[in-house]
Amino acid sequence: MKTIDVCLSPELIHLYDVSNKTVVVVDILRATSCMVTAFAHGVESITPIADADECMKMKYKGFVVSGERNGQKIEGFDKGNSPFEYMDETIRGLKIAFTTTNGTQAIEKSKGARQILIGSFLNLSAITKYLLMSDHNILIVCAGWKGKINLEDSLFAGALVDKLRKHIEPDCDAPIVAQELYLSAKNDMVKFLSTSSHVKRLNKLNIHKDIEFCLTPDQYDVIPALKRSELHLL
Amino acid sequence: MKTIDVCLSPELIHLYDVSNKTVVVVDILRATSCMVTAFAHGVESITPIADADECMKMKYKGFVVSGERNGQKIEGFDKGNSPFEYMDETIRGLKIAFTTTNGTQAIEKSKGARQILIGSFLNLSAITKYLLMSDHNILIVCAGWKGKINLEDSLFAGALVDKLRKHIEPDCDAPIVAQELYLSAKNDMVKFLSTSSHVKRLNKLNIHKDIEFCLTPDQYDVIPALKRSELHLL
Repeated sequence: MKTIDVCLSPELIHLYDVSNKTVVVVDILRATSCMVTAFAHGVESITPIADADECMKMKYKGFVVSGERNGQKIEGFDKGNSPFEYMDETIRGLKIAFTTTNGTQAIEKSKGARQILIGSFLNLSAITKYLLMSDHNILIVCAGWKGKINLEDSLFAGALVDKLRKHIEPDCDAPIVAQELYLSAKNDMVKFLSTSSHVKRLNKLNIHKDIEFCLTPDQYDVIPALKRSELHLL
Repeated sequence: MKTIDVCLSPELIHLYDVSNKTVVVVDILRATSCMVTAFAHGVESITPIADADECMKMKYKGFVVSGERNGQKIEGFDKGNSPFEYMDETIRGLKIAFTTTNGTQAIEKSKGARQILIGSFLNLSAITKYLLMSDHNILIVCAGWKGKINLEDSLFAGALVDKLRKHIEPDCDAPIVAQELYLSAKNDMVKFLSTSSHVKRLNKLNIHKDIEFCLTPDQYDVIPALKRSELHLL
């Protein structure tokens, strides 16, 4: 039987052999939710870049530069980190360079995996269907917050484990912890998350609408996947 | 208000400033459960030693050498890692040198903390009472399994957070995750743990009795604490 494991923080990724695994990177608030939204609205590619200055330079190569540090849009950037900025027709066909506090770092640290997919609640069922059909073991890599684990990414990991567990065996204890967390929270994830440290940070930025949207399952039937250094539709 | 945080793996400890914190190290199966049991039965001191060869050398300095690697007693050692080996009168007054796969490593990595205490379900209420009276912020350090998080240590962290949370604020999301896990499991922790990877490993070693005992709260009213390089009663 295939196995599924969860790496609750990118700082633990050295403990996992990713070379033969399909990795699902998740940063619910809000990097991977933005990426999924952007692909659902027709962007051509997203290049995740860990360093903000490197990302800024991509402007001169014809990229739209997007992202945040500590939850806020970076000065001089074209777009920030709200999924609502990636929803209109003007986005179609664009190439985006994207940097965020945690999400793009998690993608960087996952390189070397057999395959890297982008997960969020918005494409939860699409990811689930794909993973059920795939032959490879799975590792969910949670972006967390500056190395520490966070509720929202752990919740997504738990939701995905919960959907797959009848068919795919947990490889260690982290999937069980994540699944239990999801089962406790699933009836009202917005309320559950209101206790989280990151939501407290984000509340100061007035993005309650973003949070509600990012916790809504199955809005889009797309799966972004890393091909060399760029994300494209799978 | 004081704060409480949980470091779910020793591999994440660099993310926490321990210098002003009371650290509670926990390795439920079975290092810290053994240590608490041994002090409750009158040992004079326990010297935690990360390296097994270094631990063995302590035999020639008059120490009883104890511990395990991968769940099994080390060849040539006096005692293994079952709490039932630390329960009789012959233990009174002994100085023990102790090495384990995860627990003693977690103590080593916690050095630099304001204070290091040894926690287990066996002394849960004793630890709770002490922490409520103390003025310092708290970090629970879970020993985990070779860097990965595990169910049993996360459960203990959740139990302690649950007992303290009315009075002490969580500092980040890990305490919330641990508490939710504990609330899901508390009515039958033995059954809950039967799904865990470590218990599956230990079942092969035939130590079901150890597991049940290690999950029993409040057997002993003792708190081992690190003083220089030795554990003594607080």
